[in-house]
Amino acid sequence: MLVWLYLDSLEIENFNDKYVFVTGCDSGFGNLLCKRLDRKGFRVLAGCLTEKGADDLKRVAGPYLKTVLLDVTSQDSIQKAMEWTKKEVGERGLWGIVNNAGRSLPMGPSEWMKVEDFHSTLKVNMNGVIAMTMTFLPLIKQARGRIVNVASVLGRVAANGGGYCISKFAVESFSDCLRRDISYFGIKVCIIEPGFFKTAVTSLEPLERELHRLWNQLTPEVQASYGDKYLDKCNISVGYI
Amino acid sequence: MLVWLYLDSLEIENFNDKYVFVTGCDSGFGNLLCKRLDRKGFRVLAGCLTEKGADDLKRVAGPYLKTVLLDVTSQDSIQKAMEWTKKEVGERGLWGIVNNAGRSLPMGPSEWMKVEDFHSTLKVNMNGVIAMTMTFLPLIKQARGRIVNVASVLGRVAANGGGYCISKFAVESFSDCLRRDISYFGIKVCIIEPGFFKTAVTSLEPLERELHRLWNQLTPEVQASYGDKYLDKCNISVGYI
Repeated sequence: MLVWLYLDSLEIENFNDKYVFVTGCDSGFGNLLCKRLDRKGFRVLAGCLTEKGADDLKRVAGPYLKTVLLDVTSQDSIQKAMEWTKKEVGERGLWGIVNNAGRSLPMGPSEWMKVEDFHSTLKVNMNGVIAMTMTFLPLIKQARGRIVNVASVLGRVAANGGGYCISKFAVESFSDCLRRDISYFGIKVCIIEPGFFKTAVTSLEPLERELHRLWNQLTPEVQASYGDKYLDKCNISVGYI
Repeated sequence: MLVWLYLDSLEIENFNDKYVFVTGCDSGFGNLLCKRLDRKGFRVLAGCLTEKGADDLKRVAGPYLKTVLLDVTSQDSIQKAMEWTKKEVGERGLWGIVNNAGRSLPMGPSEWMKVEDFHSTLKVNMNGVIAMTMTFLPLIKQARGRIVNVASVLGRVAANGGGYCISKFAVESFSDCLRRDISYFGIKVCIIEPGFFKTAVTSLEPLERELHRLWNQLTPEVQASYGDKYLDKCNISVGYI
């Protein structure tokens, strides 16, 4: 109890010499986090997938927030972002990295997925987190920093067919191993497991669009095994999530 | 209690019209399983990575066991094996598939891994299981068959750095989603979670060899942060597993 009171009383100081790199800052949690950290005075380095995302974020942020174009599915793009970050942070190293970039779709009945449908999600949510973490690790080690990986409640409960749950289970495992392996160096590894928040990840319209795409790529035999009305029922239940 | 007694009394009959495809049959569990199923009278279709593995297995098995060369990291190889299987099983479909092929190395401190070190394991243990299952699913559906995925105790406890635990967490999630999604069609999805059995997966010599390879690919700065004697200690502790 006393320990908790003590821990709650701890506060981070000197925000303005602390660099935090966040991935997936075009929208959603990443975008909100950047604005929040920026207002508090942190030195925010925001990885954005699109020029538009970067421009929009810069427009609403203070003069210290910087953006860099980053596609976490490309090792080349990650390497470039790391070299840019290295110059930005200099001797201090990187105080924190938040692996937030992710996608949820396609989601749907497992049988409706082609092999590549699993990988379009895994590439971002799993491979992206591994590649970002391992590439930025020397900068984090330099600052005895922290790594924050955005997992999900679906990293504990396998509820939906497709790559999403698999990728989040993978992030849980990767983070657990890494935490133990580098705690000796004073580096913390945290995960966040959001439920159903109102971001693009839980938006219904693209989910339904993807279900239709998946349905249409099935053979007539497989479609017949589900029955004509299956997709309609599916849409109705999606509507009630 | 009565339910368990009833379930235990159930026996599979007519082995000789039941086709089972097993992956990774060159050695270990896959090899043992093929020989056992073959002795019981099942029609065993054994995917082997090497010609030698296939020849050795055929030599000790009965006349009905058939082998096919299969690299589960290649979609092309999987597709060919599926088409061969389709011809073998004909109208009956595939009674069972056992996704057994796997590799454990490299394993070691997370920081010692390059990004590709994670993927060499993930490609076989995770991508291989997903691709095999999705490609063979129509044949399994035809027979109202079963899918058996070999996970691991390390699919529940993230104990070692590298791709192994991540891949086994992924298999757990993939299997759970798939089980629910296709139970309607009478297809069962099972996982097996072995502990430390004496197969190539837990063999110490290659593990030590890989630790040395990983150590040697580190920068002098990272090596220095672990200290000269770390690797020696590591080897000693590996020796005591």
